[in-house]
Amino acid sequence: MQKVEGELTKQLGFIGTGKMGSPMVRNLLRAGYALRVYDPDPRQVAPLVDLGAQAVSSPGETVDEGGIVFSMVPDDEALKEIIFGDEGLLCSLGAGGIHVSMSTVSPGLAEQCAKLYARQGSAYLSAPVFGRPDVAEGGKLAIFLSGAHTAKERVLPHVSILGQHIFDFGEDAQAASVIKIAGNFLIAAALESMAEAAALVEKYGIERSHFMEMIGMTLFNCPVYRGYGPMIAEHRYHPALFRVPLGLKDVNLCMAAAQKAGVPMPLAHLVLDRLQVALNRERAALDWSALALGVSEDAGLL
Amino acid sequence: MQKVEGELTKQLGFIGTGKMGSPMVRNLLRAGYALRVYDPDPRQVAPLVDLGAQAVSSPGETVDEGGIVFSMVPDDEALKEIIFGDEGLLCSLGAGGIHVSMSTVSPGLAEQCAKLYARQGSAYLSAPVFGRPDVAEGGKLAIFLSGAHTAKERVLPHVSILGQHIFDFGEDAQAASVIKIAGNFLIAAALESMAEAAALVEKYGIERSHFMEMIGMTLFNCPVYRGYGPMIAEHRYHPALFRVPLGLKDVNLCMAAAQKAGVPMPLAHLVLDRLQVALNRERAALDWSALALGVSEDAGLL
Amino acid sequence: MQKVEGELTKQLGFIGTGKMGSPMVRNLLRAGYALRVYDPDPRQVAPLVDLGAQAVSSPGETVDEGGIVFSMVPDDEALKEIIFGDEGLLCSLGAGGIHVSMSTVSPGLAEQCAKLYARQGSAYLSAPVFGRPDVAEGGKLAIFLSGAHTAKERVLPHVSILGQHIFDFGEDAQAASVIKIAGNFLIAAALESMAEAAALVEKYGIERSHFMEMIGMTLFNCPVYRGYGPMIAEHRYHPALFRVPLGLKDVNLCMAAAQKAGVPMPLAHLVLDRLQVALNRERAALDWSALALGVSEDAGLL
Amino acid sequence: MQKVEGELTKQLGFIGTGKMGSPMVRNLLRAGYALRVYDPDPRQVAPLVDLGAQAVSSPGETVDEGGIVFSMVPDDEALKEIIFGDEGLLCSLGAGGIHVSMSTVSPGLAEQCAKLYARQGSAYLSAPVFGRPDVAEGGKLAIFLSGAHTAKERVLPHVSILGQHIFDFGEDAQAASVIKIAGNFLIAAALESMAEAAALVEKYGIERSHFMEMIGMTLFNCPVYRGYGPMIAEHRYHPALFRVPLGLKDVNLCMAAAQKAGVPMPLAHLVLDRLQVALNRERAALDWSALALGVSEDAGLL
Repeated sequence: MQKVEGELTKQLGFIGTGKMGSPMVRNLLRAGYALRVYDPDPRQVAPLVDLGAQAVSSPGETVDEGGIVFSMVPDDEALKEIIFGDEGLLCSLGAGGIHVSMSTVSPGLAEQCAKLYARQGSAYLSAPVFGRPDVAEGGKLAIFLSGAHTAKERVLPHVSILGQHIFDFGEDAQAASVIKIAGNFLIAAALESMAEAAALVEKYGIERSHFMEMIGMTLFNCPVYRGYGPMIAEHRYHPALFRVPLGLKDVNLCMAAAQKAGVPMPLAHLVLDRLQVALNRERAALDWSALALGVSEDAGLL
Repeated sequence: MQKVEGELTKQLGFIGTGKMGSPMVRNLLRAGYALRVYDPDPRQVAPLVDLGAQAVSSPGETVDEGGIVFSMVPDDEALKEIIFGDEGLLCSLGAGGIHVSMSTVSPGLAEQCAKLYARQGSAYLSAPVFGRPDVAEGGKLAIFLSGAHTAKERVLPHVSILGQHIFDFGEDAQAASVIKIAGNFLIAAALESMAEAAALVEKYGIERSHFMEMIGMTLFNCPVYRGYGPMIAEHRYHPALFRVPLGLKDVNLCMAAAQKAGVPMPLAHLVLDRLQVALNRERAALDWSALALGVSEDAGLL
Repeated sequence: MQKVEGELTKQLGFIGTGKMGSPMVRNLLRAGYALRVYDPDPRQVAPLVDLGAQAVSSPGETVDEGGIVFSMVPDDEALKEIIFGDEGLLCSLGAGGIHVSMSTVSPGLAEQCAKLYARQGSAYLSAPVFGRPDVAEGGKLAIFLSGAHTAKERVLPHVSILGQHIFDFGEDAQAASVIKIAGNFLIAAALESMAEAAALVEKYGIERSHFMEMIGMTLFNCPVYRGYGPMIAEHRYHPALFRVPLGLKDVNLCMAAAQKAGVPMPLAHLVLDRLQVALNRERAALDWSALALGVSEDAGLL
Repeated sequence: MQKVEGELTKQLGFIGTGKMGSPMVRNLLRAGYALRVYDPDPRQVAPLVDLGAQAVSSPGETVDEGGIVFSMVPDDEALKEIIFGDEGLLCSLGAGGIHVSMSTVSPGLAEQCAKLYARQGSAYLSAPVFGRPDVAEGGKLAIFLSGAHTAKERVLPHVSILGQHIFDFGEDAQAASVIKIAGNFLIAAALESMAEAAALVEKYGIERSHFMEMIGMTLFNCPVYRGYGPMIAEHRYHPALFRVPLGLKDVNLCMAAAQKAGVPMPLAHLVLDRLQVALNRERAALDWSALALGVSEDAGLL
């Protein structure tokens, strides 16, 4: 049964209740929604059940035909599993259903999903986000939306609970995915640039942190430089906000998307190699800004 | 005659009255200082004379022994000329004199000047700035100071008229120069990253400017990204804020400093090549963010 | 029926009779073998039928159970098609059969094929080659073999007709594929290095071809430099020996293999971008050494 | 006194009797020439005196007005010292004299020397070489000559004793210098490419040396690949044929020449960084092919 436009869906599904998904679920619960949640690891679900969520045992059970389901899973493989796997969403979502996919995945997979869902009358919305768990908790994420217009209108009330800035990038499901990937690339590029600059000033006897403070107060007084600058200045990569392998995964998505579209991105190559080196030097548990360790090692500083 | 500390020097010299120097002179005049100004091109000096400055015919005449002189000249060669050339500062400045050098020059030259001045009892202060002519006009520059402590104290009242943020980087004259160079490198790196990201999203059918607006409102809401983002999005490089050859000069300074110190900076190499390509394609009159044209050409977009 | 070791198989299959495959078939015919040949384009097969080959209408018909079949097809997709497609080899080859796969394909596909064939008692041998059509015609290819030892022994007499140097890289089917990919990368890297060197000397007023002649007579007197050097010196890329898209495909295989194995290869990235730029500038019909045009354009020489 | 053309000069000067210069002096002595030799380190000269050379105590004393002097010194600084320093060549060489400069120096210095010598009627010939000490001993160097035609004719008999291949690159003294620099860049690029390829094959379980043997027998059967290939395969960098700092110096010369001429050379940047990393990791005593250690370290292999 297709929902009438304008009618607010109060019953929602949510798949993937890890570090990012859990605070999102909590925000939706607080806002008065009923949630059926699923995660392959039941321990991730338990605390949410205490708060009123209903645990179900498969992705497909989180949503009825024509309903709305959100997902926040690690990667392409995980997304394929919850859609195409046993008791996956492709079977249960049905006509009029909407899948709001908030993970960072490849544009190609987003496009494929959008086509398959469209065939059965449901909609796949790309809705990746900028923001860490604490930002998610505060409902202050930046959310990039793309996909079928009517579906976007229907989920806007829910999405507005999760994020502060909602950016609409049109009807192509790939678009929001590309935007997220390009945004993450910008962050990675900023990490590399800070790391190189810090190594240079250090070699000339200047405190790395003095340089970082200055740029964070002047031309680069924005979250990426003010947040990562001190971490890189002090080589402080633990606890990790976003670990090396996740960064490598995202820059790999960027390279793959660039290659498919025939766009040379030498800077993306460079940060990809830095992250690979970090992984090869057993820094998987560190924050991805730890690519700066390789920069300092190359400069003979560590 | 060495000035007593604390006594405010009211008579100042200023060398180099181009786009950056002129607004600085105007600010000092407005603040009640008497200025002797010099520029190899007398037409640059005339409007300042109308405002009360006194034109002199050589660098050396801008300052008496023990006085304070500022300079804002294009490059290492120009700085050498006003110091070591005929009727240069090295002869006239004398014991107790201070040269506040606000140009972006090589750390090596800064160090050399500091040593030579010290021998005769005068001081060379590195005082390069962040900011464009309009920022200079508003007295809102960021100024990086390094050199002899007592000299810095004496010029602080004057420097504070020119800038909003004054950052002290210690007693090594090289330091502020390195800081400026490293800061400019960060800008150039940001240009390259925006250019690559913009090419990627464009190839996926997304409006470049939508992407730039989004990043300027979220993780990168700082002057560099908000200022250059729209220029790169729209390929709008004229009128130039900072022309390609100046950008190339500064990144060359960075590479030279890095090489001397043994710091590999692959990202600096990359932007150096982009700026060289821009120059080779006859874009010398464009803003240095025009390096993004090369990125789009490589992607087959132009 | 499994062939007894040592017995020479006189009836062979051959799939893919393009520029490389045709001369190989001719050599086998001349050596007295009976060949059943298949190519999706029948016009490629006709001239070989005139020489005594038997045309068949599917990959599977080229070989009987337990027989030997060679293939020389363009890429991973084509190889999958002849193995896993309708009337593909996987069904017809049967116990004791051997597929000698001479294309440049991804190591991952080689490994997958080897496993699947092994399950049914047949063998997949990786046997990619170095050499152009004229070298193939002369039976002077360099051939890299890897896969099951007994299978290699059985096909050695046939392979020796096709190539002058046969290099055995062990039992892992991936190995010969990696070797070929790494070898092609070395060629691409040599192209880039010659292109950069040629641009440099040209800017100093030196004849590019004089430089190339010199290196081809001294430290680099080997086929890659002596062959490609004059082409790059004279920017003579037509007729193409190996077209830009094929080069791009092969360097992409290299990057993918490197990424999978966690090996940073910045030089491979560099040549990948050069080839992509060549493609974006509509040079698909030119020899892959035409990446040198981009180098000269960047230097302002074209 | 200007020498009559065609008259063979039997008295020669030679400056710089290190690893390369000494065998050259020995070859000239064997051929019956009289040599006055100079080296700042007298111990380098002693063994040559035993063979008949005459030791002198300054560069200028090696040659009389109108004579011929060869030099083989480490770098630009050393060349400037023997020409412009106390009792340097510029004073003693005089009208009709010829300086055959066989070191690898910057094109700019070659040009400057040629101009200064020309003013006093003498000639500066650039005559850098390809070849190691053992090759010099055998008189089999490749020698690149550029400079005034008549001077080249006069020294050809002597130069022919030192080298097997003499390549004439015209009248511009810079030319031979650029050729040498570009040639050394090609070698460095080949080292990087071999190092990356070797890391790739090793990660796939293939013997590095098997790969290197294969390429040295097929497409790359030339001295650079056959010589350095086994060293890189076995990570055998001691004893050094050409140490890391010398390699770094030469690639720096290349970068500087490229920058001056506006030629982007990303591959030269890459190898420059590799050599810098090698130096930063205290590999100054190793052969420059030890840049391959960094490649393997980045890949997690060491």
